[in-house]
Amino acid sequence: MSEALKVAVAGLGTVGVGTVELLRAQAALIEARCGRPIVVTDVSARDRDRDRGVDLSTVRWHDDAVAMARDAEVDVVVELIGGAEGTAKAVCETAVRSGKHLVTANKALLARHGFALAQAAETAGVTLSYEAAVAGGIPVIKALREGLAGNVVNRVYGILNGTCNYVLTTMRETGRDFDDVLLEAQALGYAESDPSFDIDGVDAAHKLAILTSVAFGTRVALDAVHVEGIRHVSALDIQFARELGYRIKLLGIARRTHVGIEQRVHPCMVPLDTPIAQVEGVTNAVVAEGDFVGSTVFEGPGAGAGPTASAVASDLIDLARGARIPAFSVACDALQELTPSPMSAHSGAYYLRLMVIDRPGVFAAGASALGEEHVSIESVLQRGRDPDEVVPVVMVTHETEEQAMIRAMERIAEHPAVIEPPRLIRIEAL
Amino acid sequence: MSEALKVAVAGLGTVGVGTVELLRAQAALIEARCGRPIVVTDVSARDRDRDRGVDLSTVRWHDDAVAMARDAEVDVVVELIGGAEGTAKAVCETAVRSGKHLVTANKALLARHGFALAQAAETAGVTLSYEAAVAGGIPVIKALREGLAGNVVNRVYGILNGTCNYVLTTMRETGRDFDDVLLEAQALGYAESDPSFDIDGVDAAHKLAILTSVAFGTRVALDAVHVEGIRHVSALDIQFARELGYRIKLLGIARRTHVGIEQRVHPCMVPLDTPIAQVEGVTNAVVAEGDFVGSTVFEGPGAGAGPTASAVASDLIDLARGARIPAFSVACDALQELTPSPMSAHSGAYYLRLMVIDRPGVFAAGASALGEEHVSIESVLQRGRDPDEVVPVVMVTHETEEQAMIRAMERIAEHPAVIEPPRLIRIEAL
Repeated sequence: MSEALKVAVAGLGTVGVGTVELLRAQAALIEARCGRPIVVTDVSARDRDRDRGVDLSTVRWHDDAVAMARDAEVDVVVELIGGAEGTAKAVCETAVRSGKHLVTANKALLARHGFALAQAAETAGVTLSYEAAVAGGIPVIKALREGLAGNVVNRVYGILNGTCNYVLTTMRETGRDFDDVLLEAQALGYAESDPSFDIDGVDAAHKLAILTSVAFGTRVALDAVHVEGIRHVSALDIQFARELGYRIKLLGIARRTHVGIEQRVHPCMVPLDTPIAQVEGVTNAVVAEGDFVGSTVFEGPGAGAGPTASAVASDLIDLARGARIPAFSVACDALQELTPSPMSAHSGAYYLRLMVIDRPGVFAAGASALGEEHVSIESVLQRGRDPDEVVPVVMVTHETEEQAMIRAMERIAEHPAVIEPPRLIRIEAL
Repeated sequence: MSEALKVAVAGLGTVGVGTVELLRAQAALIEARCGRPIVVTDVSARDRDRDRGVDLSTVRWHDDAVAMARDAEVDVVVELIGGAEGTAKAVCETAVRSGKHLVTANKALLARHGFALAQAAETAGVTLSYEAAVAGGIPVIKALREGLAGNVVNRVYGILNGTCNYVLTTMRETGRDFDDVLLEAQALGYAESDPSFDIDGVDAAHKLAILTSVAFGTRVALDAVHVEGIRHVSALDIQFARELGYRIKLLGIARRTHVGIEQRVHPCMVPLDTPIAQVEGVTNAVVAEGDFVGSTVFEGPGAGAGPTASAVASDLIDLARGARIPAFSVACDALQELTPSPMSAHSGAYYLRLMVIDRPGVFAAGASALGEEHVSIESVLQRGRDPDEVVPVVMVTHETEEQAMIRAMERIAEHPAVIEPPRLIRIEAL
């Protein structure tokens, strides 16, 4: 029997404990699959005395995770602390610099420092793996880096945040409004007490920036991601989406345009008969479109101890089997600087909802503002008629330029009968 | 730059030509991803003079594929001839025996001889890869062998044959009957002139037997697969399925039972709100359920030159990168003999459709036959009432044993008012 792959785990939250549990529960299976055991020999966390429901008596405890990353006699450091800076970053950098392979689930860190970390790993001759950082238990990094590696990817997109998808799904199923459903999601543990990281699209943007790098062979470029969250999606919009044959999803989308690579996270109207429209609740999904393979869909649990531990374990199994794949699919010097394709260059169809005082001429004013910007209207929906009361009016456009749409919307917003900021949701052609 | 991975391609049908084209079109991309080029240096096919639309002037031509597998100075032989025996088998065996890695898309061969071939490869110290053999372009072998390798899989199932799914989808969308839609599928090239290989579930059984081996760590056991095709699915059944909230899909299902491993291919009623129910047309999908990860879904094109070439290329890229994964996830001596869980031990809910002459007492007779076998009825549907005419009657059962259901059905078939063989479709709890 070959020597064990020795692993140090930094961070013993639910994912860290789940990883230790998985590696123990599946020890025989993993040994059969790798031809050698994978053993956790060292751990580090903040509070040694906390009962984590897992026996740590046989592993070396380190109070200082960074010192562990430097000194522990292990082959791999698994970083499960989280956060783009501070201890997590120091652990990752130290592990790599000390000649240890690094497995991390830390999307915030990779989105900020992924390229530098990959360079450091390459220099040190070690491997950086992060299957758990994107879409939880779905092996989508592996799919892009290896399974679809014979393809030029033209677009990759997905539901990358389970909290947002849960909120949007529940809003649709119950007709309730955003704030109400968010409170429930917090009570159920699907959303953090400070939900902005999820709800405002930041988490999805981190994951998208990583996916983009792997899919397109470009350096991670988080700052080039256009980010909008789901706070402004109302029950009314969800109702209109249904009437129009769409579902509203928060998507992360990266695609090749004639300008460069477009990266955006925002609520989208997606046609009801597409696979992505059917992905509900906390489930994640990623669609990758390759030039030879066509469209492939990967769906599964995007978070939680079990799924995340499963992804971490797959990285460790790869290492134990001797696989050495470049972090972002190609060597660092082959990763190209990403040329951003800005939102101003975006074009697509739009859903525009106005809240207007129902009086003669209002609709014509909206339509003419669109017309003046050469935006052509595909359909109009109006919920009831109630003179001098506030009613919603929805206009769906044909494909048009984002710039023109924004200008038209600003013009419409100035009309005295338009009593709320107009709401715009992009319609995604999938 | 490292040395090129040299490849010989045996078989230049659409997939063989597609593979040659992909490797050429993506040469730069692949070299960046592997750190070395992948080059087709040798090919073999039946007719040298046929114009295949691809320039073969720079590769060595072999009239004898087996001789090529033995003599060509290559690292890998790609077998794309097809068929469980004959030349394809000889090419595979010869390649491996001659110390060359083997990549094949040949599901029939793997379903029959996969274990022996894996043993031969292991003995020779070479790798056997076959991503293209199951679910075309979807990297599902990689997902099971690597991405989900930290899990005990309890069930794996999927839509493994695009022809059947196309026929069933079209029947549902148009209300037309099986024979009619099959003719159309043949005209469109989605079904062979002899369609039985697809339509009778044989192709899906091959793929399922391979998936089972990878997922459960058992030796390929094709003979243990229970196989039924879709010939008996009628437009009427599809209509009733809709009323009951189901879609009819031909699924391949492998799962752990208290007896052993159950493997079956047959038409299933699947709940409309499951991901698999939404997979339409020629698309394939595989669902893998792991103990840590939960349920993951992989969906995409299951056939065609581009998707299949994409899968072949991913195997070659793995080889070029130095990955060496055991063919069925564990070394051959760790692969266990599969203990079949027979259909007689199966239990589930059933849809039973009778064509009866509408006269008093007929329904009671059916219900009492079920009752005598302790099969409890969940619901009954009857299309119209037309005394002394033939009408369909549908009974949906609660979960029951297959044995009891078969006995009840045989008893019902004997009733003089039942004028066609009763049709039974299993309802799958997903």
